[in-house]
Amino acid sequence: MTKKNETVVLAYSGGLDTSCILKWLQLEGHRVIAYIADVGQEDDFDQVAENARKTGAVDVVIRDLKREFVTDYIFPAIAGNAVYEGRYLLGTSLARPVIALHQVAVAREAGATAVSHGATGKGNDQVRFELAYAALAPRLGVIAPWKIPEFYKKLAGRKDLIAFAKEHAIDIPVTLEKSFSTDENLMHRSYESGALEDPLHRPPDDMFTVCVDPRQAPDRETIIEVEFKDGVPVRVTDETGGREETDPYELFLLANALGRENGIGRIDIVENRFVGIKSRGVYETPGGTILHAALRDLEGIAMDKEVQRLRDMLAPKLAEIIYDGFWFSPEMDFLQGAIDKSRSLIDGKVRLALYKGNVTTIGRSSPSSLYDQELSSMDIEGGFDQADSEGFIRINALRLKAHRVILRKHGEAE
Amino acid sequence: MTKKNETVVLAYSGGLDTSCILKWLQLEGHRVIAYIADVGQEDDFDQVAENARKTGAVDVVIRDLKREFVTDYIFPAIAGNAVYEGRYLLGTSLARPVIALHQVAVAREAGATAVSHGATGKGNDQVRFELAYAALAPRLGVIAPWKIPEFYKKLAGRKDLIAFAKEHAIDIPVTLEKSFSTDENLMHRSYESGALEDPLHRPPDDMFTVCVDPRQAPDRETIIEVEFKDGVPVRVTDETGGREETDPYELFLLANALGRENGIGRIDIVENRFVGIKSRGVYETPGGTILHAALRDLEGIAMDKEVQRLRDMLAPKLAEIIYDGFWFSPEMDFLQGAIDKSRSLIDGKVRLALYKGNVTTIGRSSPSSLYDQELSSMDIEGGFDQADSEGFIRINALRLKAHRVILRKHGEAE
Amino acid sequence: MTKKNETVVLAYSGGLDTSCILKWLQLEGHRVIAYIADVGQEDDFDQVAENARKTGAVDVVIRDLKREFVTDYIFPAIAGNAVYEGRYLLGTSLARPVIALHQVAVAREAGATAVSHGATGKGNDQVRFELAYAALAPRLGVIAPWKIPEFYKKLAGRKDLIAFAKEHAIDIPVTLEKSFSTDENLMHRSYESGALEDPLHRPPDDMFTVCVDPRQAPDRETIIEVEFKDGVPVRVTDETGGREETDPYELFLLANALGRENGIGRIDIVENRFVGIKSRGVYETPGGTILHAALRDLEGIAMDKEVQRLRDMLAPKLAEIIYDGFWFSPEMDFLQGAIDKSRSLIDGKVRLALYKGNVTTIGRSSPSSLYDQELSSMDIEGGFDQADSEGFIRINALRLKAHRVILRKHGEAE
Amino acid sequence: MTKKNETVVLAYSGGLDTSCILKWLQLEGHRVIAYIADVGQEDDFDQVAENARKTGAVDVVIRDLKREFVTDYIFPAIAGNAVYEGRYLLGTSLARPVIALHQVAVAREAGATAVSHGATGKGNDQVRFELAYAALAPRLGVIAPWKIPEFYKKLAGRKDLIAFAKEHAIDIPVTLEKSFSTDENLMHRSYESGALEDPLHRPPDDMFTVCVDPRQAPDRETIIEVEFKDGVPVRVTDETGGREETDPYELFLLANALGRENGIGRIDIVENRFVGIKSRGVYETPGGTILHAALRDLEGIAMDKEVQRLRDMLAPKLAEIIYDGFWFSPEMDFLQGAIDKSRSLIDGKVRLALYKGNVTTIGRSSPSSLYDQELSSMDIEGGFDQADSEGFIRINALRLKAHRVILRKHGEAE
Repeated sequence: MTKKNETVVLAYSGGLDTSCILKWLQLEGHRVIAYIADVGQEDDFDQVAENARKTGAVDVVIRDLKREFVTDYIFPAIAGNAVYEGRYLLGTSLARPVIALHQVAVAREAGATAVSHGATGKGNDQVRFELAYAALAPRLGVIAPWKIPEFYKKLAGRKDLIAFAKEHAIDIPVTLEKSFSTDENLMHRSYESGALEDPLHRPPDDMFTVCVDPRQAPDRETIIEVEFKDGVPVRVTDETGGREETDPYELFLLANALGRENGIGRIDIVENRFVGIKSRGVYETPGGTILHAALRDLEGIAMDKEVQRLRDMLAPKLAEIIYDGFWFSPEMDFLQGAIDKSRSLIDGKVRLALYKGNVTTIGRSSPSSLYDQELSSMDIEGGFDQADSEGFIRINALRLKAHRVILRKHGEAE
Repeated sequence: MTKKNETVVLAYSGGLDTSCILKWLQLEGHRVIAYIADVGQEDDFDQVAENARKTGAVDVVIRDLKREFVTDYIFPAIAGNAVYEGRYLLGTSLARPVIALHQVAVAREAGATAVSHGATGKGNDQVRFELAYAALAPRLGVIAPWKIPEFYKKLAGRKDLIAFAKEHAIDIPVTLEKSFSTDENLMHRSYESGALEDPLHRPPDDMFTVCVDPRQAPDRETIIEVEFKDGVPVRVTDETGGREETDPYELFLLANALGRENGIGRIDIVENRFVGIKSRGVYETPGGTILHAALRDLEGIAMDKEVQRLRDMLAPKLAEIIYDGFWFSPEMDFLQGAIDKSRSLIDGKVRLALYKGNVTTIGRSSPSSLYDQELSSMDIEGGFDQADSEGFIRINALRLKAHRVILRKHGEAE
Repeated sequence: MTKKNETVVLAYSGGLDTSCILKWLQLEGHRVIAYIADVGQEDDFDQVAENARKTGAVDVVIRDLKREFVTDYIFPAIAGNAVYEGRYLLGTSLARPVIALHQVAVAREAGATAVSHGATGKGNDQVRFELAYAALAPRLGVIAPWKIPEFYKKLAGRKDLIAFAKEHAIDIPVTLEKSFSTDENLMHRSYESGALEDPLHRPPDDMFTVCVDPRQAPDRETIIEVEFKDGVPVRVTDETGGREETDPYELFLLANALGRENGIGRIDIVENRFVGIKSRGVYETPGGTILHAALRDLEGIAMDKEVQRLRDMLAPKLAEIIYDGFWFSPEMDFLQGAIDKSRSLIDGKVRLALYKGNVTTIGRSSPSSLYDQELSSMDIEGGFDQADSEGFIRINALRLKAHRVILRKHGEAE
Repeated sequence: MTKKNETVVLAYSGGLDTSCILKWLQLEGHRVIAYIADVGQEDDFDQVAENARKTGAVDVVIRDLKREFVTDYIFPAIAGNAVYEGRYLLGTSLARPVIALHQVAVAREAGATAVSHGATGKGNDQVRFELAYAALAPRLGVIAPWKIPEFYKKLAGRKDLIAFAKEHAIDIPVTLEKSFSTDENLMHRSYESGALEDPLHRPPDDMFTVCVDPRQAPDRETIIEVEFKDGVPVRVTDETGGREETDPYELFLLANALGRENGIGRIDIVENRFVGIKSRGVYETPGGTILHAALRDLEGIAMDKEVQRLRDMLAPKLAEIIYDGFWFSPEMDFLQGAIDKSRSLIDGKVRLALYKGNVTTIGRSSPSSLYDQELSSMDIEGGFDQADSEGFIRINALRLKAHRVILRKHGEAE
């Protein structure tokens, strides 16, 4: 599978797993470039880079992907109403392709012949990384130690990894205890496995680090306004707190801050992984939750009915494509072609009340509103004549009547 | 359109509109039977019946449809995840078919030749009533005064109706002022038109009569458990308050009480009416909101992934069918055939925290759980071998690689 | 509904109906501009124009839409695999929007305030015309005599129209006998009503005028090749007959000639009209049938699997949109956005054998082929290792196994 | 993966591959039961059984599955309009589940601990077999030699297999030359690989063994009638030849005979395998092609429009499920729940003309026809009033007008 003496670009987080992998790859005879992707996780990247070098990386590359993550991944997903299985806003799923895209670029620049990642062999992230590699660089080698028996049989558990780290003088402050695993980026923080594996067990209050507990959130509403242009947020205004941002990255940070302060965007679900396993996940997605709610509301007033129906039928498929790791795929391009049309002229402002975990839309206005308060102001020929409803209903009723007549004829209805 | 001297069964609410219609039908020469459907609205039905008689009804029929409404309409809609345009739980849409079904039955029993209703000519309810009549009794006449020019041109507004009522000594306590129109039943209360027509205008706090304002709700969580059998709720337990119900109707009342007390289920949206108009609606759906959230969560653990994907693609269509008034239709039967399969063995219990407007799922268990904590306890051949993921990913990646090669060949990718 | 003294642009065919309508509009006090759209029907347009003038048209406008019809309507419909109810290739449905588009343009140029057409009140074409008018010119008046009681009650049948024509010295060679109605354009000829109304009655051999009867077609195969670029035909080669065309219009004519000569493209169906009526239609679509078959085949080799699945799910909706008259609509734009992606790089050549009604694909090649004869020539990392199938199948099997275990546990399977 | 000394039930065809596998399994230490499934292939089953015993089978079980194949697999697939990628009628895909179902039953009866098959590691059949095993018997072992390196590396090609057969005195009349591989059953015969791998290469005339070449078929039409009850064929009448069958199995044989005689049901396509490879397949499906065409036509007259639309959207998914091997799956049950509704009351007779490869529907009648010749005979309230079309169209046009107004306002339309 994997030859020796390759130059390998490893997606390196500085955690126990990727540190051990870095060392292991080196021991296997590879030259390892540690690639550190900044997608908004709260890390000391200088320290992480330093650790990579100490562990044996021949080079370290840090890429700040935060802005690109917001504009090219988070916003399009929101514009497409991508919500996995009706609830999950895809925070991790959206970060993987941007990380992989730059990992491939780093590999190209460095003349590397393989890429590597530390995602496990039972999860979604391995699929997302490797499908992205396949789509972007079909000839690039992939080294996934958690699927290589020589690796995972030797380093079967946390205990083994810690022993391996000690043995190789890898400097990581870890303890044997770890009650769950987590992934963090600008969009969300996820929690899974460990104590969360029992789906009946409520996560402890102190697990959550992103949002304030709704019960500790302010006792008054925070009124905000979100403005969109073609389905993309262009302004977030905190009317209560007097803040406002228009830059994509800054407005997303503000949305996050507003969500965090008001305890917004926590969910606790059991979801279907692509590999056929059900998995319990807990997520905190403060800003994303607000923006999703705001856009959905604006669509109510500015999106054509039939477009919305088609889009709503396709949105679960879009979410599935993203979740399963097919961001870079022809089917994604296909759906995106339609969604780009659906978000055209979804312009306007939505007002929301944030309050102890609730995001409530309380008003909206749009320069492209299809809502007609007077049903006449649009100055279209005829307006709405209620007598038209008679023909409309009678024609819609025709086949129902015929159906009933047939059912009766066959004794299947009275 | 309408002959004289018919026996007409009028869906009578006792409000200004249907009172005037009752009288008008009588003046047109018809014998009017006032049909009063109890779907859980808070009315004094004896008083309503008395008023009908005074206004000229030759007979009054009151039907208690509450239990049937819960078991045959609300529960199936929840089991099918029917949510209109992603947000509206269809409270009014679900009540119309059960009302129409019994109206047709009353007409048959009384030998009536026509039915009548007071829904306006621009709304959804006229469609729902008349499509149901068409489907159930294709030969029955329909008198819809709000689409009959002789009626609606004479009684064009609220003022005219009040004058007409006075003229004909119809005894209704009405005032000229009415800031919105509303519909109430077991499932929800709706508010629309009037002051709500400006979609930017937030409804006043005192408009809401069903749920407590989230800001006034208790300062502590209420922990509840909902149990389902084949996707239908069979038990609601209020662990905090020590209440429990297993009867369908009683458990729905308890779910409603829990939702009301905790400010749950208020939404404010702009939706697409079937007649092509956008409309602003505000809704309070306390119990329905809780049960929807609970079932969605249980499906996470007990529903097959591919079934869920297909169901999620069809659920918007189911909601559309219900909203548009096609409850009694072959396409409804078609979808129901699938949904009846999808809810089989969706059994188990979901624990939820209710808190100031929030419904948070915090745990779930199921005797038909497909979630496997140990990934082995299921005792299936082989379990999950992470080496299998390699082949799985490689085969899924195959066409992505081929696609890239083709794009490159045509200069459309690097 | 309609005021007097309007300038009206009438879609005029020169037949009995539109001739009477022209006169009737004139008698109603309107100035009528006869608009004659050439979409490939076999008419003497000078004679038709002459008749229009004689019948009272203040002006006559002839537009040659043939080329535009082919490139902007027929080819996109083929590229989107638009086939109504699995069989009908939409010949009439595709012509209506291009006719309406130019009718509206003529109205604008002439300063007309209304448009008119002669389509009946029970059919699809009235809807197609009027929805196109609405979408393109929402303020333009529409005069549809077949829905105006003063017209259709007076001129209820063919006999009345002939009498009216005689009375007003309208010069049309008509007879009382007409065994069916028909519509003809470049794409197809349709036959319906009259003797065809009995769906069990086989149309007489002499009804068909477009294609030779398969039984009279040549006794040997005609071998042809169709070349596509981005899903659009760019060359048709008749290898047997030694003909070849690359111009869009000319190649479509050649495809038609090939189909006609070989008895290709006749169907006899019962279809669902938009107005809720079922209708029997017989169609001859020679060239369209060939091009549809050729493109479908090319997609087999050049279209990504998942794109094809999504497209195939949406294609019936696309056909419905076209059939129902929503060519100019936001939902059409939405679908078109996706389809434009799906036809990208659908390049290559398909060889077909035409023989007595059969269109058989017998070979295909594509510069963007995703078919890999050797499963290795693509030079993608790894190729196809059959051992990968093991993991692929095992992971796909996982949820089936879990499902079975649950069914057994509940006594629903052995 | 596989232990020694198991009792293994091998799906045995008597061909070179499964004969070698039988012997190999025996050499590996297993007790092999040869399971021979009769799904209508033209074999001398006594001879095949004799060969199995000679090759070392400890037992031989022959199961006649022909009738079950027709009633429980072929007919439901036709009723659901299951056509893969628009063209392939799934002949092989439908046979696999019934073969697997009985293989598992044989294994249970014999106390076997594993099943085995001879399908290759790059094809669809391995998936179909193994997913069926997984769904029906999640704990049963599976031995798939074509994915076991010790087997397929040793017996890499046809030449090796022949040498192995000779070495072990396996008596099979084979030659080194084999220009394609084939699969035959009641529904169809398939041809693939070998000389067919070049998708541009037309198959030689003498390859086809099922249907007469259309050019050799009779010079006159054969007129037949197919009668359905609830979407299932219940009678096939050959009016020209004077034959008629009502038994499911016999009528399918008659349909096959009619198709074979008239050169019906040959296709030549490139399709997408589940494992991500494109593959060229040539098929002959005589009776299935006729029955599909007949039912589609009957649906035109007897199926509700909206049901047909939903069914048409789901039919490609149904075909995909069958093709990919998920016959025994919860998603199949889900779709089947809907399809069972859609085929209710699809009753009636379809007349067809068969002629040199063409299946042309020429008439149909149905006791549950929704087609109304007179638009009044149905005796439904009101019939069709063309004035109703006015309101119907105006209401449908409303949102198109509003959309245009908005486009203009934003300078995106004139």
